[in-house]
This record gives sequence, structure tokens and C-alpha cells, in this order.
Amino acid sequence: MRKIIVIGIGAGNPDHMTVQAIAALNRLDLILIPRKPGQKDDLAEVRRDICRRFLTNPETRQIEFDLPVRAQQDDAYRQTVDDWHDAIAGAYADLLDRECGPAGTVGLLVWGDPSLYDSTLRILERLRALPEAALAIEVIPGVTSVQTLAASHRIPLNTIGGPVLLTTGRRLRQGVPADAETIVVMLDGACAFTTLPAAHYDIWWGAYLGMPDEILINGPLAEVSERIVRTRAGARARHGWIMDTYMLRRRANA
Amino acid sequence: MRKIIVIGIGAGNPDHMTVQAIAALNRLDLILIPRKPGQKDDLAEVRRDICRRFLTNPETRQIEFDLPVRAQQDDAYRQTVDDWHDAIAGAYADLLDRECGPAGTVGLLVWGDPSLYDSTLRILERLRALPEAALAIEVIPGVTSVQTLAASHRIPLNTIGGPVLLTTGRRLRQGVPADAETIVVMLDGACAFTTLPAAHYDIWWGAYLGMPDEILINGPLAEVSERIVRTRAGARARHGWIMDTYMLRRRANA
Ligand SMILES: C[S@@+](CC[C@H](N)C(=O)[O-])C[C@H]1O[C@@H](n2cnc3c(N)ncnc32)[C@H](O)[C@@H]1O
Ligand SMILES: C[S@@+](CC[C@H](N)C(=O)[O-])C[C@H]1O[C@@H](n2cnc3c(N)ncnc32)[C@H](O)[C@@H]1O
Repeated sequence: MRKIIVIGIGAGNPDHMTVQAIAALNRLDLILIPRKPGQKDDLAEVRRDICRRFLTNPETRQIEFDLPVRAQQDDAYRQTVDDWHDAIAGAYADLLDRECGPAGTVGLLVWGDPSLYDSTLRILERLRALPEAALAIEVIPGVTSVQTLAASHRIPLNTIGGPVLLTTGRRLRQGVPADAETIVVMLDGACAFTTLPAAHYDIWWGAYLGMPDEILINGPLAEVSERIVRTRAGARARHGWIMDTYMLRRRANA
Repeated sequence: MRKIIVIGIGAGNPDHMTVQAIAALNRLDLILIPRKPGQKDDLAEVRRDICRRFLTNPETRQIEFDLPVRAQQDDAYRQTVDDWHDAIAGAYADLLDRECGPAGTVGLLVWGDPSLYDSTLRILERLRALPEAALAIEVIPGVTSVQTLAASHRIPLNTIGGPVLLTTGRRLRQGVPADAETIVVMLDGACAFTTLPAAHYDIWWGAYLGMPDEILINGPLAEVSERIVRTRAGARARHGWIMDTYMLRRRANA
């Protein structure tokens, strides 16, 4: 049976690689490195860098391939995601047929950890559902951008015994549960924190976390919100892309 | 100035150590390994094992010390935690005075990642507040038990674009926000999932995650709840301790 190992590689710093992830890398026959057409190459470059530094098995081959392009987001958000995932599953099936023997072991290097806002495991379930694809799956956990945000700011996420809500920019715009004390926001392309009552929150924001260009800003949301918006726009223009994550904490007096 | 490096060591599997954590370990003058008096030694043993395997700097000293005992939990929960954290900060201050030069670098090895239900960073803030203690703090992120749970079950935490609530057993007993679709529960000493309407949830449960005795159970809560309660009690009796974490997902029909 073929095996796919889904390897969490950490959130941008190659030194986030775990001993377990490095060992898994070196058990692979084939590493698939996805490229997003039309996007900056820095993220594929982190994966190449990881292979250069940690891959010592001379038998392991690396193949880069272009990810199918996703239809524009619109009201049918779920539908386009569904179609896109089907297309990626199809691309994987083709690659496996062409490049991997019936008992080969294939690796996918997932940014951060595979459990958090990543579609790899869902796509592999589709691949497994194809009639011809008997597949074993193994997952190696990694350091997430959430843990990296907290480490860079040197803060715990939760208050003592308190809950933490992980969510997306899209959801944050739809409103925050009134009792959410700590909120971590990912996948926010448009500064959704500006839609909150600024006086009620403190924010710990980070971009390019763990990477050479890491930027950190924190403080009362009312005081730093504009600076984050400006800094983010500038950095995004300079790099051509940005990844940012932030934690919001409801202020005691709110 | 003294420096303390707070190192996330992963959630029980020494192979969760990152390249960054191993490098940090070897930059230390002193490693403090806490022991909890009266408790099974397995958790200190994981830390010793990590030092045996990954510490190559012959100059680094290891010191084990007994953590101050925490007063019994009662209604004054926050108060006893406060006192306990003060006592631990005091113990650290004494150890630093006795064992570490004024420019030494000291390491604390934190289970999982320091951001999640761990008091080390809060305790160090107290230590920093002491008049004599000028301290730099650095944090190295690690793999959490939440990521380990998801990896062992080979599942993503979030639904597509959906939020995830991280919380404790204590909080879960107080009730679940009606719109919480995915809930991850830690620090649950008494199977708080048995207080939920069982027909409304699926559960993915794991104990000793990443360790040789890992146990995994998943399914509709109504079908597996009793089995988890029984398995947990048996494992806890055999080992003398247990650590478990689980994910709950609200069923579509709930
Ligand atoms: C598709 S999700 C993948 C998350 C990833 N699986 C993880 O565990 O961190 C991408 C989002 O993760 C966050 N992110 C990932 N890497 C980041 C980094 N180095 N700095 C800041 N945010 C990051 C951003 O919120 C970004 O929008
Ligand atoms: C004091 S908290 C520390 C969490 C840790 N900082 C982390 O990042 O995972 C301890 C709780 O973490 C969870 N936990 C930690 N390690 C675990 C493991 N190996 N297996 C299952 N649960 C674990 C359990 O819910 C336990 O009650």
C-alpha cells in the first residue's frame, strides 16, 4: 500500500523542524512541493531550504508541481473550496500514478501544523475515496503560527484556566461571542480587528513570525490599530505577500 | 543580565524537540528540572531523557528541584494559584542566586508549548517584578498536546473556515457556548464530556499522546463515552497518573 506522510514543518523558521519531522523526511521516496502559480515563491523556498538542510537520504526525490488555481471567493465560498479540493486531490492522484510505485512513501510538507486551517488532510480523504487509491496516512505534528506568535511576544495564550477561541478574519467580522476573553485570529486578509470596539481589547500582532522579517506590535487596540494597518500595508507592498496572526484579549474594564 | 530561555519540549515524545529547542538547550549554563513531590516521576523522566539525548554541551549543568506544593483547590481557586505562583517564583529566585552567575543563561523545559495552560511565563513575570532580578526572557515554541491529538487521530481541528474553542474540563462543566462547533478540552481530571448532551457530539479522545502507551478512542459521544470513562480509569490506575485531551465536534443534526 502507498503511504502519505503529512509533515508539519513549523511556521516559517526551518529550525521549527522537529526530530520526528526530520526522521520522517528521510523515510520518504518522494517529496511533493506545491507551487502556487502567480504567487511569490518564498513559501516554496522555505520548503526547499528545509530539504537542503535536513534531507540526507540520497534516494529521496523531490518534485515540484503547480497547485490547481482556486476560483475567486464569492458567496458560494464552500462550493469553490469543494471544487478546488477535488482538483488538488486529482492532481495528487496523477502525480502518484506517474511518480510513485504501489508501495511508495510520499511526503507533503505542511506549513505550521496540519491541524490548523490547512486543507491537506481533507484533500487526502478525497484521494482515499477514489476507487484506485489504497492509502495509509501518517501525520507528524509541527509548531503552529499560534505558538510562534505567543513565543515571539513571550506571552501565554490563556488567562489562568481561561478559554481561547481560534478563529478567522472572516468570522471575526461576523461578530465575537460576548464571553470570548482571548481570541486568536488567522487568515485575515483585511484587518478585521478594525471592526471591533477598539477600547475593549488589547492586541498582540505578528507578521512573518519566525522569519527574518518578523514584525511584532502590541498594545491597547485603540492605540496601535492604525499603526498595524499601516505597517501591514507597507510590509505587504514590499514583500509582495504577508502572513499575519494576532491575539486579542478583552480588557478587564470592557 | 541573566537570561531565562523557556523551551517548549513537545507533548511527551522526545522526538517533538525542534532544531531550535535543541540549539537553545546547548546554549544554557543551567537547566532547572522541577519535580512534583509525591507524584509519579515519568514527566521529570521525559525531561531527563531529552537532556541525555540532545544535550551535548559539557558545560551545561542540570539541577533538579522540588516544586513548592500547591494548596488544595477550593472556592478560592485563584487565590491558591496566586500563592503557589509566588512560592515558585521565590524558589526560582533562590536557585538563581545560589546556582547562576549574574550573566548566566538558565533553561526551563516546558511540556508541550509554553503558551498553553502552563504557568511558567506568568511565574517569570513575578520573578522579574522582584527588585533584585533583572532578567531577559526568550521563548522557544514547541509542539502542543492539541497538535499531537490531531496528528494521532489524523484529523484537522477546524471545519473549513470554522472556529475552534480551546478550554478546560472545569469550564466545560459550566456549559458550552451554543455556537461552539469544535471544542478542544485540556486539564480535565473528571471526564467533563459526560455532562454534555451525548447525542449532539462526536469525540476524538487521546491519553499519553505521543508516548509509548498512547491510547486513542473516537466516535459518537453517545457510543464511546462509557468506554472512555472506563479506559481512562483503568489506565490511570495502572500508571498512577494520566494526561488526556479530547476534541468535541457538534454533530450536523444537533
Ligand atoms: C492557511 S493558514 C495555515 C496555518 C498553519 N497550518 C499553522 O499551523 O500555523 C495560514 C495562516 O496562518 C497564519 N500564519 C502562518 N504562518 C505565519 C507566520 N509565519 N507569521 C504570521 N502568521 C502566520 C496566518 O494567519 C495565515 O493567514
Ligand atoms: C498543564 S497542561 C499543559 C499543556 C502543554 N503546555 C501543551 O502545550 O500541551 C496539561 C494538560 O495538557 C494535556 N496534555 C499534555 N500532554 C499530553 C499528552 N501527552 N497526552 C494527552 N494530553 C496531554 C492534558 O489535557 C493535560 O491535562
